[in-house]
Amino acid sequence: MLQYQAPLEEFNFLAHKVLRLSELLPLLPEHHHIDADLFRATLEVGAELTQEQLLPLNGSGDAEGCRLEQGGVKTPQGFKSAYRLFQENGWPALTVPLSIGGQGFPGTAGVFFDEMLASTNLSFSIFANVREGVLRCVDRFGDERVRSLFSDKLASGEWLGTMCLTEPQAGSDLGLIRTTAVTQSDGSYLLSGTKIFISNGDHDLTENIVHLVLARTEGAPAGTGGLSLFVVPKYQLEVPASANGVSVIALEHKHGIRANATCALAFENARGYRVGELNRGLACMFLLMNSARLAVGVQTVGLTEVAYQNALRYTQERLQGRALNGATHPDQPADPLLSHIGVKSSLVQQRLFIEPARLLCAWVGTLLDEARCHPDDARRKQASQLAELLTPIVKGYLSQHAGTHISSALQLFGGHGYIVETGMEQLLRDAAICPIYEGTNYIQSLDLLGRKTLSDQGQRLGIFLSHIPALAERLRQRPGLEGVVTTLASWGAEFEPLVQQLSVDTVFNRDVVGLVAPDFLELLGTVVFGYLWAWIADAAAPSTSDEKFLRSKPALARLYFSEAEVRVPSLIEKLKRNASRLGLLEQIQLC
Amino acid sequence: MLQYQAPLEEFNFLAHKVLRLSELLPLLPEHHHIDADLFRATLEVGAELTQEQLLPLNGSGDAEGCRLEQGGVKTPQGFKSAYRLFQENGWPALTVPLSIGGQGFPGTAGVFFDEMLASTNLSFSIFANVREGVLRCVDRFGDERVRSLFSDKLASGEWLGTMCLTEPQAGSDLGLIRTTAVTQSDGSYLLSGTKIFISNGDHDLTENIVHLVLARTEGAPAGTGGLSLFVVPKYQLEVPASANGVSVIALEHKHGIRANATCALAFENARGYRVGELNRGLACMFLLMNSARLAVGVQTVGLTEVAYQNALRYTQERLQGRALNGATHPDQPADPLLSHIGVKSSLVQQRLFIEPARLLCAWVGTLLDEARCHPDDARRKQASQLAELLTPIVKGYLSQHAGTHISSALQLFGGHGYIVETGMEQLLRDAAICPIYEGTNYIQSLDLLGRKTLSDQGQRLGIFLSHIPALAERLRQRPGLEGVVTTLASWGAEFEPLVQQLSVDTVFNRDVVGLVAPDFLELLGTVVFGYLWAWIADAAAPSTSDEKFLRSKPALARLYFSEAEVRVPSLIEKLKRNASRLGLLEQIQLC
Repeated sequence: MLQYQAPLEEFNFLAHKVLRLSELLPLLPEHHHIDADLFRATLEVGAELTQEQLLPLNGSGDAEGCRLEQGGVKTPQGFKSAYRLFQENGWPALTVPLSIGGQGFPGTAGVFFDEMLASTNLSFSIFANVREGVLRCVDRFGDERVRSLFSDKLASGEWLGTMCLTEPQAGSDLGLIRTTAVTQSDGSYLLSGTKIFISNGDHDLTENIVHLVLARTEGAPAGTGGLSLFVVPKYQLEVPASANGVSVIALEHKHGIRANATCALAFENARGYRVGELNRGLACMFLLMNSARLAVGVQTVGLTEVAYQNALRYTQERLQGRALNGATHPDQPADPLLSHIGVKSSLVQQRLFIEPARLLCAWVGTLLDEARCHPDDARRKQASQLAELLTPIVKGYLSQHAGTHISSALQLFGGHGYIVETGMEQLLRDAAICPIYEGTNYIQSLDLLGRKTLSDQGQRLGIFLSHIPALAERLRQRPGLEGVVTTLASWGAEFEPLVQQLSVDTVFNRDVVGLVAPDFLELLGTVVFGYLWAWIADAAAPSTSDEKFLRSKPALARLYFSEAEVRVPSLIEKLKRNASRLGLLEQIQLC
Repeated sequence: MLQYQAPLEEFNFLAHKVLRLSELLPLLPEHHHIDADLFRATLEVGAELTQEQLLPLNGSGDAEGCRLEQGGVKTPQGFKSAYRLFQENGWPALTVPLSIGGQGFPGTAGVFFDEMLASTNLSFSIFANVREGVLRCVDRFGDERVRSLFSDKLASGEWLGTMCLTEPQAGSDLGLIRTTAVTQSDGSYLLSGTKIFISNGDHDLTENIVHLVLARTEGAPAGTGGLSLFVVPKYQLEVPASANGVSVIALEHKHGIRANATCALAFENARGYRVGELNRGLACMFLLMNSARLAVGVQTVGLTEVAYQNALRYTQERLQGRALNGATHPDQPADPLLSHIGVKSSLVQQRLFIEPARLLCAWVGTLLDEARCHPDDARRKQASQLAELLTPIVKGYLSQHAGTHISSALQLFGGHGYIVETGMEQLLRDAAICPIYEGTNYIQSLDLLGRKTLSDQGQRLGIFLSHIPALAERLRQRPGLEGVVTTLASWGAEFEPLVQQLSVDTVFNRDVVGLVAPDFLELLGTVVFGYLWAWIADAAAPSTSDEKFLRSKPALARLYFSEAEVRVPSLIEKLKRNASRLGLLEQIQLC
């Protein structure tokens, strides 16, 4: 059985010492009522909820799974009452703006709370999470009727939500979507079509479910430019409620997240309401997609954190072999696994991932707050652009690496890691969805290099790079971190010529982007992690002696740089060799 | 549902064009009756068996799993009759020496046949495979009575076998084993103790099961030097057979290989027979362990091969998006996934792994044949030492990377890869045991760097390195491969100074070995793969036009080198920095 202690010290350190929320929040009208004490106290209550209510349901929910009975999905035992508690205690409203009935906590609080949800019960967290993105779409793009019908119920979590994009023939290529929407005299639409892989597609947690659906109106152009967005409730909104032509065709059997209901849904003349302009559905949906992509990054942090905690505990307790430099526990039949340097090194690698991954998510959460409501126009724009650059890194880089670290944690258990009852193997299965959903990682890498870097003339990338000198300046005053400063600055200087070369190469062959995009994501992710480690080390350096958990951070940062220093040049060299790699790929016939 | 076509062309190419078995086998007394035609024809029949009998049971066996009923394990539906067919057709005897009733095929044939088993049904292959190692232990170390009791039944596959090493308190640290063996007046022993994680621990496939058990006799020294090896049948050998004090305490629920019976076994005064000298049990067991480690490498090849084949097929069929350089199939609503350069690149990465991995296993299979029965003493010794060096690479390097490639293949299916019915996710779960069992990968890396390299004064490593110049000389005559020659030679030259530095560093701090062992495994694995790609390219170069599948190999080899050229120096640099990394690790407190 897995154990979990929410890393509250880390949360508060990142929020207040690193991101300095107490300086920022007073400037943000939506969040200025939240101070450090309320932030801390709220996360403490959230920690209790997740540790005591959700963790005990994680293994049992996985074993039991969801069931399809008489056309409806039943969630595993305990999920319904856990959701009721979750909802009645107001958690759905945590980061919902005050203006629409929420509590107005900043995005960082949401990121940390969601991390605890993911650490303790990923399937439950997916049920809980999509709703807020649906709400934000409805609130931003819906007309008064739509807002009045759905906002309150979504804000309170009385109803949950879904995103209906994928169809059997349309996965990464949404331009192939066929679901139709036929306009009605009252301004509503009747939707018909098949949607697959719909998380939370049906369940018994709430009385109604709000589907956000991409569909094509009559006469709309082909491709993504002909897609509009609709909100379609499971039950019609009249009283008494009647079914609305949405039925469950299939409940998927999956590798992981088995307690979440992934459904194929048939829409047959289901009544829906348009959200946003005609044929601009994809742009509206992207508001939700971007928050979903941040959520995936947060999930990977939660999963690696709980895997790490359990591996650390096991390696402290399990006695096996003797340390190479001599017994550390000569009174015992063997030394604890943690006495072996290779075991410690594996755990440290996990920490080197988790800490900057958590800060990255929290940082993007803060940037999205700034982008929405900072009083300074330029600051809003810059925050928005930086968040756009970092989003594919949050989703793609984190989910690409999380599986490796969870697998390392599992392997520290030896054969016990492979046994279901230990709980580690579920984490590996659950995490395996993260590289796939909300846009595959290959799509993320194309987004990062193509749209966010090359098509942008490097502007968004420039915003990130412009942050480096100020941090370097602060770090120069920290003894022992001089090497970090030099390396970070040298990395920053590599990007301009590299992006220029890639731009030129792409003019001659568009496949250059398609080939090197994953390498570019890996490179920028590695450099962003360096920036984040430097930031953490800077904030931790003046720690007083009672903050024991901060003492290792400068050494962790230096270790990160020591290893990344040899990887970054090899990644850059690989990117530069794209022409010869493309040439060789063309000579290779796979079939 | 997974599909599979055994890669027979590749098998024959490796056996006859690369390893040149038709020159070697006539020199080996145990194998000189096997010619290329018999080799080819036998693998063809084996391909039919695995494709038609075992593949259909793979998904169903995983879903059903084994069951514990009335103290005995029932295998999933179809396994019993498949095993009967397998046994009656003589497959268990394939590589068993003629002298003990086998067919005397060379190890390479066994490697390729086992790869087909692993591709089509890993759980079944584990049932089938352990037996031959048990037989070889019994044949080599058993006295006449033991051989007469067990050899024939094991050779024919009438009985299957297990390896009983692990106990609850003794996993990687076998010195902690507590199972006792009490000597009896007739020379037999009574064994008592608990063994866990025993593959094939109990089942209904054969009438009896032969357990090979590490245990401690009365008064034996503590640690591994007090372990002796025993063969313990499930049923006593008198007629009628009666139970022998071996009972199933638990049948494990596992992440994967769910159709294999992983058991906890209790031995209560179970009658056993010693195999090999008193207190030399571990050395005897290592004969079996080394073949088991080769088998794990073969398993990873089989799993990545079937994952690759299915991903290739899916990406040819699935239409999604348009190629970046313009539509390749303008008459279709979208281009096949394979038209996207990033998709092709991912598949090529899988090929870059599978081909040298397969050759590595086949090469070690051949080396073990040579080590056993080559008429030239020096050749026997050299083959044995080289096989010893390569074994931790086969087990550790292959299983460390296989999961990544299977995960890449799965991700090419998008959301469909995450669905149980597609079959890909089972491969990922099954493959996850490979880094763990038969000695964790960390243990493999310590074995490679500590025992096989540093303690050996680089002698075994020198044998490998001495192979490089001859291959380089041949390659110089192949146009287009000059760069490969230069790089390979330069890599070879890096090892002497590196190993010298590590030897010196280790004198000052034994933890250096423990820290850098995984990096050294990664480095040597990467270089060995380079050697293997160069070997493949050399053998493929003079191909005639009717050998279409050979045409891409030189380009694959060059691509491998193009990518490894930038990775190898960074790995070497990382290894050299061990002192500063150790210093930083010492400053980091994890708890």
